[in-house]
Amino acid sequence: MPAAPAVVLLSGGLDSATALALAGERGFVCHALSVDYGQRHVAELEAARRVARAARVAQHRVMRVELAGIGGSALTDTALAVPEGPTTGIPITYVPARNTIMLSLALAWAEVLEAQDIFIGVNVLDSSGYPDCRPEFIAAFGTLAALATRAGVQGRPCTIHAPLIELSKAGIIRAGTRLGVDYSQTVSCYQADDAGRACGRCDACRLRRSGFIEAGLPDPTRYR
Amino acid sequence: MPAAPAVVLLSGGLDSATALALAGERGFVCHALSVDYGQRHVAELEAARRVARAARVAQHRVMRVELAGIGGSALTDTALAVPEGPTTGIPITYVPARNTIMLSLALAWAEVLEAQDIFIGVNVLDSSGYPDCRPEFIAAFGTLAALATRAGVQGRPCTIHAPLIELSKAGIIRAGTRLGVDYSQTVSCYQADDAGRACGRCDACRLRRSGFIEAGLPDPTRYR
Repeated sequence: MPAAPAVVLLSGGLDSATALALAGERGFVCHALSVDYGQRHVAELEAARRVARAARVAQHRVMRVELAGIGGSALTDTALAVPEGPTTGIPITYVPARNTIMLSLALAWAEVLEAQDIFIGVNVLDSSGYPDCRPEFIAAFGTLAALATRAGVQGRPCTIHAPLIELSKAGIIRAGTRLGVDYSQTVSCYQADDAGRACGRCDACRLRRSGFIEAGLPDPTRYR
Repeated sequence: MPAAPAVVLLSGGLDSATALALAGERGFVCHALSVDYGQRHVAELEAARRVARAARVAQHRVMRVELAGIGGSALTDTALAVPEGPTTGIPITYVPARNTIMLSLALAWAEVLEAQDIFIGVNVLDSSGYPDCRPEFIAAFGTLAALATRAGVQGRPCTIHAPLIELSKAGIIRAGTRLGVDYSQTVSCYQADDAGRACGRCDACRLRRSGFIEAGLPDPTRYR
């Protein structure tokens, strides 16, 4: 039996690079999907290209969605500043319905590829309080996916895999390191410069840095 | 109390023009959203602009999604022909995960607008067998929406309204006519020409034409 195809959402950050490695470890032929939703950190998309190449994916596609125009997030609206201290509640870097949109696009592509598996690198513990990183959200999307597509109706529904969902950042880093992920190629920072160098101060940077410390592994992140 | 905002998905076809009129009748301030997913019938988007203007919406936004590149549908892939005879099962004009993607984008915009209501003009009877036009799909999206967004988590979930879902095409036409919808401005044809004139032969044209006949109303469609 030939290896099954899977669609893997790939942002270019630490988490999705690890989810891609885990999908590969399970034997899937990986089709990486990056979504350009007008995020500030275009360096992310460059990182996604590097990570996809290093993982030798079957193909890497970047889909563009004009989400920036609607505003509502510090990640897409340049009028809002990225916070650099600790935040409580759902932070301003939350992008409305982001994971719903990204999973929808992955679902469309999966149907065309006749793939029954989608991987997304969300995790709830270090999720900064984003509602669409919770297990109940992933489960609800799986229910929707079975009803939404021709493949689902015909008895070939998609499974949504979120292999990092219960892991700590340190656990994610350990898993990826075991599988040879080169984290120096990934960009997590919400305000990386064009060369992909991190600020070291935003929420994403702080979570990432403490993950390496907790994992007892050197932090290869390029700070500016 | 000021009127509540709603996001209304507007394709420029007969159904969504009617859904917009029904949302207006219920007193919502309508924000119309058209999604340009690379469909063949660009005439649809022109029709959407005309319909939005005639309905005096608060605003009309066209979001572009690069879906065409993945193929898989006669509506986005020019290598596939639009069928002109009767079809059985789910036809080739089915666009993978289309309504999931469009509702996701509507959900994102609704959250930014602080709107708790989304209207979509799907209907199951004349739906050509599309899986994402069924009531169970709409219900599953509602469940997802409540889990997916900051507003949902904070107790202000979105309601997905599909007011046409159980209507026949004739019933839809009667409802819209009662509300003053000018159907000559709408385009339903899967292969309309650039001037918005219909072929009269595709599945969408045949459903529409028989709807006017059944409703006992003159068909204002411009055929070529």
